[in-house]
Amino acid sequence: VLLSLCPGARIVDLSHEIPPGDVPAAAWVLAQAAPLFPAGSVHLAVVDPGVGTERRPLACEIDGRRYVAPDNGLLSRVLARGREARAFVAAEPALWREPVSDVFHGRDLFAPVAAHLAGGGALADVGPEVPLEGLARDAWPEPRSEGDVRVGAIVHVDRFGNLVTNLEATPPAAGEVEVAGRRVPVGRTYADVPKGRLVALVGSSGFLEVAENGGSAAASLGASRGHVVLWRARSRS
Amino acid sequence: VLLSLCPGARIVDLSHEIPPGDVPAAAWVLAQAAPLFPAGSVHLAVVDPGVGTERRPLACEIDGRRYVAPDNGLLSRVLARGREARAFVAAEPALWREPVSDVFHGRDLFAPVAAHLAGGGALADVGPEVPLEGLARDAWPEPRSEGDVRVGAIVHVDRFGNLVTNLEATPPAAGEVEVAGRRVPVGRTYADVPKGRLVALVGSSGFLEVAENGGSAAASLGASRGHVVLWRARSRS
Amino acid sequence: VLLSLCPGARIVDLSHEIPPGDVPAAAWVLAQAAPLFPAGSVHLAVVDPGVGTERRPLACEIDGRRYVAPDNGLLSRVLARGREARAFVAAEPALWREPVSDVFHGRDLFAPVAAHLAGGGALADVGPEVPLEGLARDAWPEPRSEGDVRVGAIVHVDRFGNLVTNLEATPPAAGEVEVAGRRVPVGRTYADVPKGRLVALVGSSGFLEVAENGGSAAASLGASRGHVVLWRARSRS
Repeated sequence: VLLSLCPGARIVDLSHEIPPGDVPAAAWVLAQAAPLFPAGSVHLAVVDPGVGTERRPLACEIDGRRYVAPDNGLLSRVLARGREARAFVAAEPALWREPVSDVFHGRDLFAPVAAHLAGGGALADVGPEVPLEGLARDAWPEPRSEGDVRVGAIVHVDRFGNLVTNLEATPPAAGEVEVAGRRVPVGRTYADVPKGRLVALVGSSGFLEVAENGGSAAASLGASRGHVVLWRARSRS
Repeated sequence: VLLSLCPGARIVDLSHEIPPGDVPAAAWVLAQAAPLFPAGSVHLAVVDPGVGTERRPLACEIDGRRYVAPDNGLLSRVLARGREARAFVAAEPALWREPVSDVFHGRDLFAPVAAHLAGGGALADVGPEVPLEGLARDAWPEPRSEGDVRVGAIVHVDRFGNLVTNLEATPPAAGEVEVAGRRVPVGRTYADVPKGRLVALVGSSGFLEVAENGGSAAASLGASRGHVVLWRARSRS
Repeated sequence: VLLSLCPGARIVDLSHEIPPGDVPAAAWVLAQAAPLFPAGSVHLAVVDPGVGTERRPLACEIDGRRYVAPDNGLLSRVLARGREARAFVAAEPALWREPVSDVFHGRDLFAPVAAHLAGGGALADVGPEVPLEGLARDAWPEPRSEGDVRVGAIVHVDRFGNLVTNLEATPPAAGEVEVAGRRVPVGRTYADVPKGRLVALVGSSGFLEVAENGGSAAASLGASRGHVVLWRARSRS
């Protein structure tokens, strides 16, 4: 559909491996990757369990990049990091592929709108601007401090089984992390511990994560999104 | 291989996730996607459990699009919807990559033939034209009516676990569907029912399908391809 | 990252389905596919469990093709087949994306170096040349002969469950293969045996492999990489 409407588009498939309906996972993957794309890229993201309901289709400009996605939290992480943003509801049927299926807006609505933008079309053509405050957000729990302990949560599990937290950190980090009843030393990289052992480290996007060298921390710990994580920057002796 | 023989080709990977050897699934995916590609596209499809046997390699033109695939039913769904078709057996070794492996015609025969077509080569160059009647077809059972009940079957299970039937329908549809001993209301979209509940709806390609909101109908019902589906356009009270 | 640094790059995703950390599987897939790419291609391969340790990042030219990969054995199979090779350590930070994460050199180091090469940059720019003898190699056991029996091993299991050995063969091959306590006839293609039966054949890259027609030999035999395989070119009567 993109190539039919915008023959010059260069398409990069970022991922077709988001678990069905897992909007928070998609929001994370999108926010990690989008800033690395060339300026001017149009990001089309469709994980859309509410397709056909009154959830709104969006086209946004965030820090100079454009995004087309359902208004269901999929842009949460991008918006949380964005400095400047504008949002438009895709409400102009002339841009769509008719008839629009009730169950596949990716094909009939989002892709055509993304092709419009990729082909040089204006954001304002897609429909009315709407206030950012009204956009659906998938809010992470805010990390907080309790004495010298930072309290956060697992917000993403990647395909390696690494447990990504919402605790921002700058390398080199120190101390230990507690998760699922286990105390895990903070290191620098996976191979800081022997194979099969757990290590916490600063992940590639600046958040603490818990990993297992050569294995899956998620499987070993039975931990998943939402689990509480404690970070003591100085280990208890 | 495609880029080596046709450097200007633009390659779109449609799917690498067809279960091994599952020709009917590939036939379905191909027929859903191909008509959306730009006119002039060459569709290379290889699910080929009979590689190295006497099953014929085909190059076809169907409604203005060209397809390269084994003659094993992979083109069944495209042919079933096509208005105009011509089929040629790829029998011209000069177009192949020699020596042709007995177990990987995708690399050595189908891709080179697709590159020939993508580079502007003629269909007739690949080998002799053959009658359409002789092509392998993976025939679905024909839906039939019993009183006011339409009787069909599940013909595809998609990656979300949605059960796609061969019962054509135009939205809005009504009534109820019976499958695997369960009666499922016909709605318009997934979110017409609460999470975890089943709903039947008109899928994105115009066939009734049974879905679970936020889950897998295939898993919940233990249903798979071939299961009978009854559709009563008016629910029994 | 590639497109940001080398906007004209044409990217072909070869595989995102290597099991996490499985360097030998990646080495195999790379060696099968790379020689089929157009001359001048740059091959970026990152399976990198030792990221952040002192394992070296490499840029190599092997038989006229360039490769960027960690020095962990990932290039073993390409090097084993290569006639001419030169290796350079990527040690020039000016080419990297700073700051370099301790856990994601694919993004920050390997991709930028590959973009440099794809954009016409010289291999020698990336850092000092190093001797080939020092490169990490993931050595297969050498096949040997015992009387008229060739003794080898399973070196790869593909996504179909086919068991690829290190026993080179030219079709047509004959005899029988013994693996996991089972004797399997050597044939020419999968369909030489009935569905559900095992067959050994010359795979698409010139090595004997054990397959199950319509199934997974790996699952049926419970066999995996490293298992011994015996090939008798003449069957015992």
